[in-house]
Amino acid sequence: MSVQFSDIDKLAVSTLRLLSVDQVSKANSGHPGAPLGLAPTAHVLLRHMHLNPTNLDWINRDRFVLSNGHACALLYSMLHLCGYDFSIEDLKQFRQIDSKTPGHPEFELPGVELTTGPLGQGISNAVGIAIAQENFAATYNKPGYTLSDSFTYVLLGDGCLQEGVSSEACSLAGHLKLGNLIAFYDDNHITIDGSTSFSFDEDVLKRYEAYGWEVMTVEKGDADLESINRALESAKKNKDKPTIIKVTTTIGFGSLNQGTAGVHGAALKPDDVKQLKKKFGFNPDKFFTVPQEVYDFYKKSVVEPGVKANQQWDELFRNYREKFPQLGMELDRRLRGELPKNWEQKLPVFKPTDSAVATRKISELVLENIYPVLPELIGGSADLTPSNLTRTKTAIDFQPPSSGLGDYSGRYIRYGIREHGMGAIMNGISAFGANYKPYGGTFLNFVSYAAGAVRLAALSGHTVIWVATHDSIGLGEDGPTHQPIETLTHLRAIPNLHVWRPADGNETNAAYKAAIEAKGSPSIIALSRQNLPQLEGSCKDKSTKGAYVVQDVENPDLIIASTGSEVHLCIEAAKILASKPSPIKVRVVSMPDFMTFDCQSEEYRVSVLPDGIPILSVEVAATSGWGKYSHEHFGIDRFGCSGKGPDVYKFFDFVPEGIAKRAEKVADYYKGKTLYSPIKKALPFKSTNV
Amino acid sequence: MSVQFSDIDKLAVSTLRLLSVDQVSKANSGHPGAPLGLAPTAHVLLRHMHLNPTNLDWINRDRFVLSNGHACALLYSMLHLCGYDFSIEDLKQFRQIDSKTPGHPEFELPGVELTTGPLGQGISNAVGIAIAQENFAATYNKPGYTLSDSFTYVLLGDGCLQEGVSSEACSLAGHLKLGNLIAFYDDNHITIDGSTSFSFDEDVLKRYEAYGWEVMTVEKGDADLESINRALESAKKNKDKPTIIKVTTTIGFGSLNQGTAGVHGAALKPDDVKQLKKKFGFNPDKFFTVPQEVYDFYKKSVVEPGVKANQQWDELFRNYREKFPQLGMELDRRLRGELPKNWEQKLPVFKPTDSAVATRKISELVLENIYPVLPELIGGSADLTPSNLTRTKTAIDFQPPSSGLGDYSGRYIRYGIREHGMGAIMNGISAFGANYKPYGGTFLNFVSYAAGAVRLAALSGHTVIWVATHDSIGLGEDGPTHQPIETLTHLRAIPNLHVWRPADGNETNAAYKAAIEAKGSPSIIALSRQNLPQLEGSCKDKSTKGAYVVQDVENPDLIIASTGSEVHLCIEAAKILASKPSPIKVRVVSMPDFMTFDCQSEEYRVSVLPDGIPILSVEVAATSGWGKYSHEHFGIDRFGCSGKGPDVYKFFDFVPEGIAKRAEKVADYYKGKTLYSPIKKALPFKSTNV
Repeated sequence: MSVQFSDIDKLAVSTLRLLSVDQVSKANSGHPGAPLGLAPTAHVLLRHMHLNPTNLDWINRDRFVLSNGHACALLYSMLHLCGYDFSIEDLKQFRQIDSKTPGHPEFELPGVELTTGPLGQGISNAVGIAIAQENFAATYNKPGYTLSDSFTYVLLGDGCLQEGVSSEACSLAGHLKLGNLIAFYDDNHITIDGSTSFSFDEDVLKRYEAYGWEVMTVEKGDADLESINRALESAKKNKDKPTIIKVTTTIGFGSLNQGTAGVHGAALKPDDVKQLKKKFGFNPDKFFTVPQEVYDFYKKSVVEPGVKANQQWDELFRNYREKFPQLGMELDRRLRGELPKNWEQKLPVFKPTDSAVATRKISELVLENIYPVLPELIGGSADLTPSNLTRTKTAIDFQPPSSGLGDYSGRYIRYGIREHGMGAIMNGISAFGANYKPYGGTFLNFVSYAAGAVRLAALSGHTVIWVATHDSIGLGEDGPTHQPIETLTHLRAIPNLHVWRPADGNETNAAYKAAIEAKGSPSIIALSRQNLPQLEGSCKDKSTKGAYVVQDVENPDLIIASTGSEVHLCIEAAKILASKPSPIKVRVVSMPDFMTFDCQSEEYRVSVLPDGIPILSVEVAATSGWGKYSHEHFGIDRFGCSGKGPDVYKFFDFVPEGIAKRAEKVADYYKGKTLYSPIKKALPFKSTNV
Repeated sequence: MSVQFSDIDKLAVSTLRLLSVDQVSKANSGHPGAPLGLAPTAHVLLRHMHLNPTNLDWINRDRFVLSNGHACALLYSMLHLCGYDFSIEDLKQFRQIDSKTPGHPEFELPGVELTTGPLGQGISNAVGIAIAQENFAATYNKPGYTLSDSFTYVLLGDGCLQEGVSSEACSLAGHLKLGNLIAFYDDNHITIDGSTSFSFDEDVLKRYEAYGWEVMTVEKGDADLESINRALESAKKNKDKPTIIKVTTTIGFGSLNQGTAGVHGAALKPDDVKQLKKKFGFNPDKFFTVPQEVYDFYKKSVVEPGVKANQQWDELFRNYREKFPQLGMELDRRLRGELPKNWEQKLPVFKPTDSAVATRKISELVLENIYPVLPELIGGSADLTPSNLTRTKTAIDFQPPSSGLGDYSGRYIRYGIREHGMGAIMNGISAFGANYKPYGGTFLNFVSYAAGAVRLAALSGHTVIWVATHDSIGLGEDGPTHQPIETLTHLRAIPNLHVWRPADGNETNAAYKAAIEAKGSPSIIALSRQNLPQLEGSCKDKSTKGAYVVQDVENPDLIIASTGSEVHLCIEAAKILASKPSPIKVRVVSMPDFMTFDCQSEEYRVSVLPDGIPILSVEVAATSGWGKYSHEHFGIDRFGCSGKGPDVYKFFDFVPEGIAKRAEKVADYYKGKTLYSPIKKALPFKSTNV
């Protein structure tokens, strides 16, 4: 398909521009500059895109990622003009409470592929989408049955290019030779502080060449549709490399203040808007104007071909299912967002007599077992494969076929030492659809490097899984730089994020089961480096409630609540306390995931942590956050130290005797005092899962 | 000084290698591979470095940054051989509890310039040191009085290059033309996962050229001291660009498994160590061997010239003080780590009648006032200057003089959209010495992007200040992607990190006073976008206790504890409650910094939050972490939303009526119930400031 341009295209571009400006003006808030500069690029892109506003989930649609999410007025204009569920009334509600047009694009909105705004994320997510597409195509395409050949298009600005997360993801994209990824760099020479010459005069295209990308330039991006189109057509032909096209534009094109930081992030003055409309041949006194021929044009040139392509795809897939029934059924299932029946029976079951083993090893075993039955699992590690134990024996690396190191059907990604990039890429893989469940390994402490991406996973509800091993001071010798202290508190405070810290094999199973079945929530699974015994009272089913009584006693004097590698120490401590001359009866509660526990009924929660009994939390990490469940806390509110793992545990007195000593103190202190369950509150309880 | 090499250099290199290997073997833990490959580079570097083991704080010493901190056995060997306070006994305690030789280098150790290990940080810190040196030189050097001309040398590996934080910092270093920065890239083709070809085949030098760096290669880095030296000498001559020298080495050089991932992170087998020692002409049965001539050589060729250079510098500085008494006194003061007398009198004082103003505006006023009297203040923003209000009117940009945009004496850094880079650079500026107090602006939510650097600031005790504006849902329209929820909880859980959230002008003053006077702790100052009234009861001196009673009443029925922009709402709520038919008497407590409050006496803390009275926390953020101070929490445990700031506050019911409603509920609920102060605990209280 060769695209030709005429006057209607110019009119469409002007409409995109002015519709965006009107949104910002109505809200008196937002970013008019980038939409004015980028409308031509956006329009050319639309002319190329396969999309279907009546079937948002069509797996072979082209994806459009607005990495500079602050330009979202442009995106909402595009979606409106192409018949997505964005009315003019919606555009008028730009940036207002409860509107469909928030200040940055949000994943759940129709036609919005990703939540963007935090800079650098969108382009990195797009690398993930491109990886997913290559994997999907390599898995399901058959000669004569090209089920997947979609492109991922990105708009990004200077901010996205400066952020390190994009450097990580784009370096990997170059390595992976993702020819299905095409990015347009809005080279407008302006950031919030002013000229890019203040801080950013690197040679961007040379850098991307160094990454292995194809690079191109369009000099007159404000108007030269033909050149943008020529670059795009050429980029689409190059299947061996991702492409970045530098489009030089004028920020706020047409405004009296065009080319200055003044048009970046504030509404244009009313007079400026008037002259702008005049300049583009629009009535200066009218707002939110769309000429009918523009609607008609997008319908004819974008929507109808897209809908038709989707219909042809449906037909192709019908035939595919006949010809390749097994793959067809599998794909059908994935497109319905369902897991294989009884997949969880593959999860290994543990008995208390099984040997002590690190939960990262359990995780390896779990992955080994479920990997073959879950083609949607696509894993990797940020260069800690032998430590995270994330690679299954039969896995093939996801690599460009020409590398000789794997191929695109491979489901193990060598992310390199790029945690933040990995996080953003996993989000993109999840956003691609087809029920992809990306997982990625690193040390728990270095999940913090990816905080920006983890937060967006939670905000967007991407079902990604972080395999976060070496989850405490128990990692030992690497010392305080590698020992998480605040990390669990941080992650647990992120809304809609599961943070599992399983105590043994069965609890690790529960964590994986929940993480893989989760709809709309990401999960962190924190795993030990050191061996942990299989607990007498542990149970996958109970664990899936987030917290449960792992060892009970009648009329307990004290409850110890703990997680992960400390639970077995607490059970030992309970034994010590039971055998004292004046025995202290202790219930031990294991709390593998706070968020899941918070979602249980109050009745259940109070049954686990009832009134009248002092509750002591025990965890080798910051105590902050435990106040929700316990009256007293034994934790570590300082940084760790370098030494053998068991020595570090001893140093901090996290041994059965040390726990017992504190438990005794707590039991004594509260003897005769009135105590309420921390679960019972005056204010209605709200889980973070909202 | 032209460096010549002979047999003794080879012997020294072998000693460095084997001393490092012996440390790892003794500990049976650590990383022998990089030290074996990098010893020649390290040795050549030592031959060039101006250092003085008897005066660690000599401001004109050259800095050595081991960015690949896992190679620290090499660093400890270097420090031992050059007479720093690292004995052979210390080396034998490698990676053991309480030793001077932890698993990664730590800032407080003699001769260790920075805590490294989390990859990408060291090189980025080094950019900060280089900035500080340029600023220091431009400020104090005078013709004939070159007080500062030191270099910053870095060793870094593939991991550091893959991490985004280094991309951010190195792009900026290129822009800033930091000719005093020289990095050696250990190109050993191996990461933990195996060959770099798995994930990292970009053209690193081309990328650095794109950043504006000078690039060089040394092909035979395992032995070719002359080539390493030639590159280094050439790099030192180029004053206009930072330099990266790619030194191709063999990881684990000499080991039977050299060139494989197997030698990266585990001790070599005893037999391998034996053959290695034989290969290098050492007794295979002896450990921790240092030939006397190697000690003598380092003493003669490194230590003595360094000590002499320091003496000459002392003489120069004596003369300088006579010739430039004012600058001399200032510098003297800074080198003593003291602030100017009465500097804090420049802090503006506010009266309740002063107009309502955003605390970010107060922050601007504070900076405006103190900037001229504190030459150690060196600030900037991650491209949010007009939002963070971090640039004072008279500030000059820190820019290469050739740019025409500023010069190196400038104290305002245009960081670009690089939060993580900014954080790491600030850490480096602080580590340079001379009492530098770097501050950097961004939105509070995006401090998370820099979590890796913030954590290291706290662990190392760098006195950096984050000016974190737009600190809540109050930022409004930008929506949930920009509204922090978990951020305060996260940051407060980091040990040794002050997190100030001032409620008005006087509290903002207190925050700045504390942050600037802090010794060994970094600070975050969270500031509002929206206007806040000057409170009747606010007070700088009380605020410096971290929490205080801002509005009291006799025999309160309830205490509301709050921070920042919610304090005035709580005071309004208290008025509503007082005027009810059955009045509820409310004490309002403002808690601008938890960590500072935690450091007060128990007596004081209990006086603020006494027994017997229900305490309700009110903060527009995650409730996690408040359990330490309050029984009930009114917060936001979900993501925010896009809308006008006041509308978003209303949406979440954070208005005086909404607070009063909840306060009433809480007061009712606890009526007649026994309540203890959350300050009083069975287990001894530990502040995070340890």
